Amino acid sequence: KKRAYIVNKIEYSGEFFSGTRAELVAAVKQSLSEHRFQHVLRVEQAAIKLAKLNDVSTEKASIAALTHDYSKERSDSEFKETIKKYSMDPDLLNWGNFIWHGVVGAQIVSHELGITDPEILNAISRHTVGAPKMTKLDQLIYVADFVEDGRDFPDAQIARSLAYADLQAAVIFETKHTLQYLMSSNKTIYPAAIQTYNAWVAGH
Amino acid sequence: KKRAYIVNKIEYSGEFFSGTRAELVAAVKQSLSEHRFQHVLRVEQAAIKLAKLNDVSTEKASIAALTHDYSKERSDSEFKETIKKYSMDPDLLNWGNFIWHGVVGAQIVSHELGITDPEILNAISRHTVGAPKMTKLDQLIYVADFVEDGRDFPDAQIARSLAYADLQAAVIFETKHTLQYLMSSNKTIYPAAIQTYNAWVAGH
Repeated sequence: KKRAYIVNKIEYSGEFFSGTRAELVAAVKQSLSEHRFQHVLRVEQAAIKLAKLNDVSTEKASIAALTHDYSKERSDSEFKETIKKYSMDPDLLNWGNFIWHGVVGAQIVSHELGITDPEILNAISRHTVGAPKMTKLDQLIYVADFVEDGRDFPDAQIARSLAYADLQAAVIFETKHTLQYLMSSNKTIYPAAIQTYNAWVAGH
Repeated sequence: KKRAYIVNKIEYSGEFFSGTRAELVAAVKQSLSEHRFQHVLRVEQAAIKLAKLNDVSTEKASIAALTHDYSKERSDSEFKETIKKYSMDPDLLNWGNFIWHGVVGAQIVSHELGITDPEILNAISRHTVGAPKMTKLDQLIYVADFVEDGRDFPDAQIARSLAYADLQAAVIFETKHTLQYLMSSNKTIYPAAIQTYNAWVAGH
């Protein structure tokens, strides 16, 4: 099901990352298993496509996509130390990698890669459970992660078509779909994910 | 599908309510539409049955069941005034009757009916969204409301059989079932309901 694709070549301005795209790709590749690195490249492609369709900076989309899972393979103890070091909400300690690699991951990206643009960091931070209010960049990273061409869960093709037709509708679809999946598997639900659901799906 | 039943005659001790069961029933009847009053009587029957099966006071079960929806037909403005009058969590003002009639309802029961036993009030308070930790009385009111003989939603008979076989399993079933229903209908989910889900269903 995976298709070949031509990498969209994004020229970086130097404003958000102090190197070329190739240098950022190299830093990401070094931090991740090959499997996850390939996922990240596919998310970047989806994110750039969505950025063009939604009049968002393709450079920011590329940087946020390439770094969204940057910390995902760090140890639990490194995440816990980071939470304490930067005085993040201590309730985070009750959760795990799934939550940490977004919100704590943004801190790690900021400190290790020198990326400090708040829009990019918010998009990394919000990519796993979303938020009641999301910028277009937040939305497209959240959605690109869900619909990148390697995804083949049931309804992935529906989600993909929806994403390229209507970004907001795709956010709603993904939010509901993810929670329904978690619930059908008796998996823990992070309370912030319900705030995303209430705002986007229930319109509360 | 509704079956005739013999009312279990519970003699009240006077310890938890300063009158007879018939007097409490009369007070409840006066506060509710006939339709909801009949529901309340059926919840009481289920609750007494569950109390006997789980070694819980049938008197407390009767009182909590008869009063669990006591405030349900009050106006939004009365609930809002009660929240302010008793300095309850101001976040409650963002919600509606579905949430208020449990947690605010317990305050109204306490002040209008003179029922002050904390176990009974907790059971009223927790009957709509549950809680991570629930006493047996909490559990059986929560479940009785879901499985009383008038309930005929799909799976009601499964829930009912489960309730009389294993109270905790029925709490888990109800919690997941209710959230899945809300989500499939794009309805707002109260964050505390997710805490109940995480504790009972996901075992977090």
